[in-house]
Amino acid sequence: MTKVAVVLSGCGVFDGAEIHESVLTLLAIERAGASYQCFAPDMEQHHVINHMTGDEMDEKRNVLVESSRIARGDIKPLAEYKADEFDALVLPGGFGAAKNLSSFAFEGADCTVNGDVETALKATRTAAKPIGALCISPAVLAKVFGDVTLTIGQDEGTAQAIEKLGCTHAPTNHGEITVDQAAKVVTTPCYMLDANIAQIAEGAQACVDEVIKLTKA
Amino acid sequence: MTKVAVVLSGCGVFDGAEIHESVLTLLAIERAGASYQCFAPDMEQHHVINHMTGDEMDEKRNVLVESSRIARGDIKPLAEYKADEFDALVLPGGFGAAKNLSSFAFEGADCTVNGDVETALKATRTAAKPIGALCISPAVLAKVFGDVTLTIGQDEGTAQAIEKLGCTHAPTNHGEITVDQAAKVVTTPCYMLDANIAQIAEGAQACVDEVIKLTKA
Repeated sequence: MTKVAVVLSGCGVFDGAEIHESVLTLLAIERAGASYQCFAPDMEQHHVINHMTGDEMDEKRNVLVESSRIARGDIKPLAEYKADEFDALVLPGGFGAAKNLSSFAFEGADCTVNGDVETALKATRTAAKPIGALCISPAVLAKVFGDVTLTIGQDEGTAQAIEKLGCTHAPTNHGEITVDQAAKVVTTPCYMLDANIAQIAEGAQACVDEVIKLTKA
Repeated sequence: MTKVAVVLSGCGVFDGAEIHESVLTLLAIERAGASYQCFAPDMEQHHVINHMTGDEMDEKRNVLVESSRIARGDIKPLAEYKADEFDALVLPGGFGAAKNLSSFAFEGADCTVNGDVETALKATRTAAKPIGALCISPAVLAKVFGDVTLTIGQDEGTAQAIEKLGCTHAPTNHGEITVDQAAKVVTTPCYMLDANIAQIAEGAQACVDEVIKLTKA
């Protein structure tokens, strides 16, 4: 059975993994007849946001512990990820990708990427295994790889930052994917567009199906 | 357009709303061509559980604020729910239904139910509008109504507590629903069974589709 590692970045769109994208990625993997294992970096969240008000809360939360809510407890520290034990890696989106997995939300092209995330991405590509990324997560790939074609939808500022990193940006609409066949990188815009949840399901399924197809390429 | 109110109970299976069931309920509503509005009671969670370890954490979190993570910020206090503004009400599951919306996890048939939850459920039934409940949430309906036929899957202890409350329990398997036509109550077991996420999607869709059908009955 095809095994897909899913990298989460917390639990909630404004300070962690986008919950709809994460759940619908897991659903897409299950529906494709593959299995998944969730991972997240064991690190403190950049901050905690009250999702009703948008205000920062005076709290500290851990990315791995909060991500385990989406994974129903079945999650591993990203430091334990081994590319040879999986067929593919997928990163759902949410600000967690740009605030915890990287600092892209604050520093754009000058951002840094969490060491475990960078190691996992590089090991997966070195092993010639496919990587999927949803929403803003392609920005993390752009910083780590610097030479791939990917999409974050239509947002010009984000697209420019990605091109500044040496990547090619392909504009896309709801449910569409961009495939870099050479790098085996599949990306889809999801909530980087003004989308509804059914469009997120379509995008996640399209991305996951292509990733799984590439595991057999 | 059919408008469905969705009542959340936090964000995470062990101390709040089950995230997969919640997201897949929203997806099912969208795919049925209806719209949704999330609600949650504005109250402190019974407790906060580290979902990796199962241990209680020394923290306080608010049910409405945590639920807003699943709703991407678009949520209202359950006290503001008016049955005449919606066509149906749906409760996803998770321990939040049995720890926050009610005390069923601790007191079984002798539990109490949060006042806003009780008011919302009674107003919806009085208005002859359908109610859907997933996983353990049917136990909340059992306590409030005491005269409906519903399912929580196969768990004998829970089924007995529900029958003690005057309800009839119908055993079900993955993706199946139990419909009480007179009360317009639709229930499905979801993660009360040892299910995978695709089975949760099936159960949520079956429940929501029947609820929406009953809005036209």
